[in-house]
Amino acid sequence: MLSAGLNIVGFSWITSPAATELEMIVLDWLAKMLKLPEDFLSAGQGGGVIQGTASEAVLVVLLAARDKVLRRVGKDALEKLVVYASDQMHSSLQKACQIAGIHPENCRLLKATSSTNYALSPEFLSETISQDLTIGLIPFFLCATVGTTSSTAVDPLLSLGKIAKSNGMWFHVDAAYAGSACVCPEFRHYMDGVEEADSFNMNAHKWFLTNFDCSALWVKDRSAFVQALSTNPEYLKNKASQANMVVDYKDWQVPLGRRFRSLKLWMVLRLYGLENLQCYIRNHIKLAKHFENLIAQDPRFEVVTPRIFSLVCFRLLPVRNDESHGNKLNHQLLDAVNSTGSAFISHTVNTY
Amino acid sequence: MLSAGLNIVGFSWITSPAATELEMIVLDWLAKMLKLPEDFLSAGQGGGVIQGTASEAVLVVLLAARDKVLRRVGKDALEKLVVYASDQMHSSLQKACQIAGIHPENCRLLKATSSTNYALSPEFLSETISQDLTIGLIPFFLCATVGTTSSTAVDPLLSLGKIAKSNGMWFHVDAAYAGSACVCPEFRHYMDGVEEADSFNMNAHKWFLTNFDCSALWVKDRSAFVQALSTNPEYLKNKASQANMVVDYKDWQVPLGRRFRSLKLWMVLRLYGLENLQCYIRNHIKLAKHFENLIAQDPRFEVVTPRIFSLVCFRLLPVRNDESHGNKLNHQLLDAVNSTGSAFISHTVNTY
Repeated sequence: MLSAGLNIVGFSWITSPAATELEMIVLDWLAKMLKLPEDFLSAGQGGGVIQGTASEAVLVVLLAARDKVLRRVGKDALEKLVVYASDQMHSSLQKACQIAGIHPENCRLLKATSSTNYALSPEFLSETISQDLTIGLIPFFLCATVGTTSSTAVDPLLSLGKIAKSNGMWFHVDAAYAGSACVCPEFRHYMDGVEEADSFNMNAHKWFLTNFDCSALWVKDRSAFVQALSTNPEYLKNKASQANMVVDYKDWQVPLGRRFRSLKLWMVLRLYGLENLQCYIRNHIKLAKHFENLIAQDPRFEVVTPRIFSLVCFRLLPVRNDESHGNKLNHQLLDAVNSTGSAFISHTVNTY
Repeated sequence: MLSAGLNIVGFSWITSPAATELEMIVLDWLAKMLKLPEDFLSAGQGGGVIQGTASEAVLVVLLAARDKVLRRVGKDALEKLVVYASDQMHSSLQKACQIAGIHPENCRLLKATSSTNYALSPEFLSETISQDLTIGLIPFFLCATVGTTSSTAVDPLLSLGKIAKSNGMWFHVDAAYAGSACVCPEFRHYMDGVEEADSFNMNAHKWFLTNFDCSALWVKDRSAFVQALSTNPEYLKNKASQANMVVDYKDWQVPLGRRFRSLKLWMVLRLYGLENLQCYIRNHIKLAKHFENLIAQDPRFEVVTPRIFSLVCFRLLPVRNDESHGNKLNHQLLDAVNSTGSAFISHTVNTY
């Protein structure tokens, strides 16, 4: 609310040095809490930036990656560019591809099955990339998720990252939801392999007590943003920017204007501190564990896929294996619970 | 501040019917205050939406226009698409083109000179379009400005709109700054011809007492947005959306999540009312007129281009026609005034 009240429009450093520098500082703090590799800190070639949403985060990294590869292979190759992710990836990737002009048939959403707990299989990815290379396509972007929307599945970052690297692809890790849990040492291993990533995102507005919007994005090579998103009209020129002495966040995002969102995150980090945030996360996960146990003990229900964080995927078991009737019953349960107004359940489907 | 405090994330109607419906209502109110054609009201096929910034507004209309023409001519024609605007157009258009994959050499920023007070010349536009058609390119998007950034120039909407229409192009009108003035009957004529436009934008956060961010965008054919920007994953499905009974603003914008920004505009409209907003605008313009007179009376200065709204373009006259020394002096004046911290001047250049 303070951030809204101040009404700061800090697109360039010069328009609000404090807003720019506080953003760099709090994202360095958060990067350290998450034990991100040093390449993501602002002291080197990388750094963090607050986007409004994870949709915007994945869009700007996709644009940076697209323009980077097009500078190498020529801009007429756009129709050959291929993007990879699991079919459990959030719909924001498809939307970003649509915006960036990636051909829809080159947006590979690879089937993730219950055999991997809905994580993307590195072998399947490798095979698909090989096939695409054979027919002259250009694999350039891989997006992995830590904590998918439907079941909080965790993609195996290390193996996926190595495949991306060996094919010269940009590797983005989307931990919009589950990134928050990784400030607890006992959950940090779900992010192992993030050192292979070119960019990493987590939403402080999801599960980190920060109000919407505050999506934290880190990149190892910030010049890729500037090359894809910079504009430099006369009326925005100023000494600090021209001398390359400062970060102008307008060149790291889609809009020009930007609010003082780092103030919200600063407040959360200073007010609660790491320990309280860890307790808060642990408590949610404890509650989810408890609920998972209740479900497991009740013969009418099943836990559909193992719980990892604070989401429990469960359903009413179909009677006499009648899946269609079972789906109908589950829909009725969903509507009945949600219409109470005191508890809300979100839904998903298993597409095969 | 209330809008921030409530922390509503109203991407679909179902996630916050009030946020969605209030947005439709206040944008209808504002459209009526601006005397926009009825096609822009939510009762028909069009409607208004709040974007964060004018950059996002021009990006989403460009994407809608791009995908509309590509559905007709085939998606491999992307490299043939041409965008037109004057060279006084805000840099956000170039950035939007870059994002949408329009080839930079197909982004025609036509020179606007002092002979038209820096407005885009319809004749020049017509000629350029004809030349482009001759070499097989596809003109598809025209952006006109009411109140450019450098000198608040006003493009002749009516003639430009007719050219766009006769060539089957999307016509967008950017009135980010000067749109606010058009709630006063005596300034409304600067928007004459807006009835030819497919989309229209004004920033309530610029000159309409609304805090950042609140950029109002109207479109005549809202389905163009939905076709370019819609995603429909299982976890967002709900009865109201599936039945096409409601507006889901997620499909009118780049991000998924969105804040309750209409509350800010509602508050401004209810708190001040049309008459007070008109007084506020008129007072600013009166102050600018006064300043313009002071400049005109002082032989050391000149008014560079006629003042239209609240911006006065002036400079120190060069001594003995030494333009280079004159520019240096003007830069020194700019720095000297801005370093006082009590008044701020913005700068621009005449590029020829």
